[in-house]
Amino acid sequence: MTRAAVLGAGAWGTTFAAVLADAGTEVALWGRDEDVAAQINAERRNERFLPGMDLPEGIHATADAREALSGVDVVAVALPAQKVRGIIGPLADAVPDGAVVASLMKGIEVGTHARMSDVLRDVWELSAERTLVVSGPNLAREIAVKQPTATVVAGTDSSAAEMLAAATASSYFRPYTNPDVVGVELCGAFKNVIAVGVGVTDGLGFGHNTTATVITRGLAEITRLGVALGAHPDTFSGLAGMGDLIATCASPLSRNHTLGAHIGRGLSLEEAIERTGGTAEGVQTSLSIQELAREHDVDVPICDAVVAMLHRGEPIKELLTQLLSRPRKAELT
Amino acid sequence: MTRAAVLGAGAWGTTFAAVLADAGTEVALWGRDEDVAAQINAERRNERFLPGMDLPEGIHATADAREALSGVDVVAVALPAQKVRGIIGPLADAVPDGAVVASLMKGIEVGTHARMSDVLRDVWELSAERTLVVSGPNLAREIAVKQPTATVVAGTDSSAAEMLAAATASSYFRPYTNPDVVGVELCGAFKNVIAVGVGVTDGLGFGHNTTATVITRGLAEITRLGVALGAHPDTFSGLAGMGDLIATCASPLSRNHTLGAHIGRGLSLEEAIERTGGTAEGVQTSLSIQELAREHDVDVPICDAVVAMLHRGEPIKELLTQLLSRPRKAELT
Repeated sequence: MTRAAVLGAGAWGTTFAAVLADAGTEVALWGRDEDVAAQINAERRNERFLPGMDLPEGIHATADAREALSGVDVVAVALPAQKVRGIIGPLADAVPDGAVVASLMKGIEVGTHARMSDVLRDVWELSAERTLVVSGPNLAREIAVKQPTATVVAGTDSSAAEMLAAATASSYFRPYTNPDVVGVELCGAFKNVIAVGVGVTDGLGFGHNTTATVITRGLAEITRLGVALGAHPDTFSGLAGMGDLIATCASPLSRNHTLGAHIGRGLSLEEAIERTGGTAEGVQTSLSIQELAREHDVDVPICDAVVAMLHRGEPIKELLTQLLSRPRKAELT
Repeated sequence: MTRAAVLGAGAWGTTFAAVLADAGTEVALWGRDEDVAAQINAERRNERFLPGMDLPEGIHATADAREALSGVDVVAVALPAQKVRGIIGPLADAVPDGAVVASLMKGIEVGTHARMSDVLRDVWELSAERTLVVSGPNLAREIAVKQPTATVVAGTDSSAAEMLAAATASSYFRPYTNPDVVGVELCGAFKNVIAVGVGVTDGLGFGHNTTATVITRGLAEITRLGVALGAHPDTFSGLAGMGDLIATCASPLSRNHTLGAHIGRGLSLEEAIERTGGTAEGVQTSLSIQELAREHDVDVPICDAVVAMLHRGEPIKELLTQLLSRPRKAELT
């Protein structure tokens, strides 16, 4: 039997632990909060991060990370993107040799511009073959109630990816493997920035024609940057690209979308963050993506507008007018 | 000044006439119902097909199609896909020589498998250069209230496409040209079938992860068939492909989506059609698309499931289980 540890007992980490347990994998879930761990073990509930959801038997929660990591075959990491390096650094010696490590995180580190799997490899000195990424249209609360969901497990080593896919597959959770780690991971990070932009248009009161256009042009932006970084173009039209982007932009459950809607209704960034609660990864990641795009000379007008709105306080209506008054041109020539 | 006729005073035909008028084009709008035409001229309203919406000055409505067509440079046709051939056949001699003809319709003719622009060319003996297609994320009621909207004008002759783009462009309506008529037109027709499927999953109570997956796999189906028919692959990730599909699947205003939701909640096809009102083009088009796919040996599992549910009364839950239990595999290899 496969043994797994999940680091991070937030909504997604807790849900992923449930997915593993439902697939017959033995799973230890680490969270820093002892009360959360105690409640999961005693009541099969995580009321702080996943209120109202029943968790399966077979998740062992602990506030001791070294205990969680002991003897596992798989480590899945679901921590805030900008904090993960500091949190997991001291655990490097506790990761079993040969264990496969999967990032469940969706962000780009500010300063280094590192993707989350690169942060894991860097801090824990992992080979590329041992490092995986899980990303797709995966709203945690829907998976927690066993709605049918597909995801992508990306890894350069197909046998490692297939191992994690088998450890998570169940009647409601369908993992597809993909060798394109760069593309899958960029999609997960960048879509949060586009979701903020879509939220803004929602907050301004625009309808589905407008949001569908922002989503479509947003995926074009993600694809341009991804291809410049060496990703496979087909990844972007798949579940981790288009699929995740659509789910995130459609859902009132998405924090990035919600934060954007608050901004669209005229709140300041500070007010919007406070009302949204939790970490909206798109806020910091927009800065990293913009810098990455500049480095690679890629045009990202929607990301630029999000950065200008969130971080430079530029007036939304003017930014929108600028976007809409770009010269009209041929879609294909 | 460009002069245009719009044939069909339903929601989309009336809205497109308003778009032309707002762009400074002189426009005659033909509808068979004399009361509708009289109300548009007297009150700038079309309460039957576009209730509550104010129409601009400069639309001249008429129940006389020959009057509408007299002396125009552009003819735009917005009639039900399965009826257009019969309705416009007798008007062939009234279409001015050299006028550009644009299809605003989204369907495939049952029996012939003809795209709508092919029906127009066939019935009116038009050259390919004179025949255009307009398609995109264009929910009529949102455009009628001047929400910012982009669309695609497809034509093999770029000067004809550019002429129609200029005749429709305004502060809220942005047309992009594209030479890929086959791709743009297939997207518009096939997306209605996928929207029915997404509606079914909504009606069954599934969430955004599921619908995002159906939309993503749906676009993959549309792309496979389109490429087999000679379309350009990039059209499908553009506004007429992904954009229109997302807008249609997101909107409670879409008849195809609404019809699917009724089916998902257990209504029969007849009951669902009655409750939906108006023509849900996906119902008949699903049959044509399935036959086209068979002819070209293309796999279209979502279209197959829609046909089985709508036209063969197969039980929805079993179809869904079949779709979900297809062998798990690599997304890219």
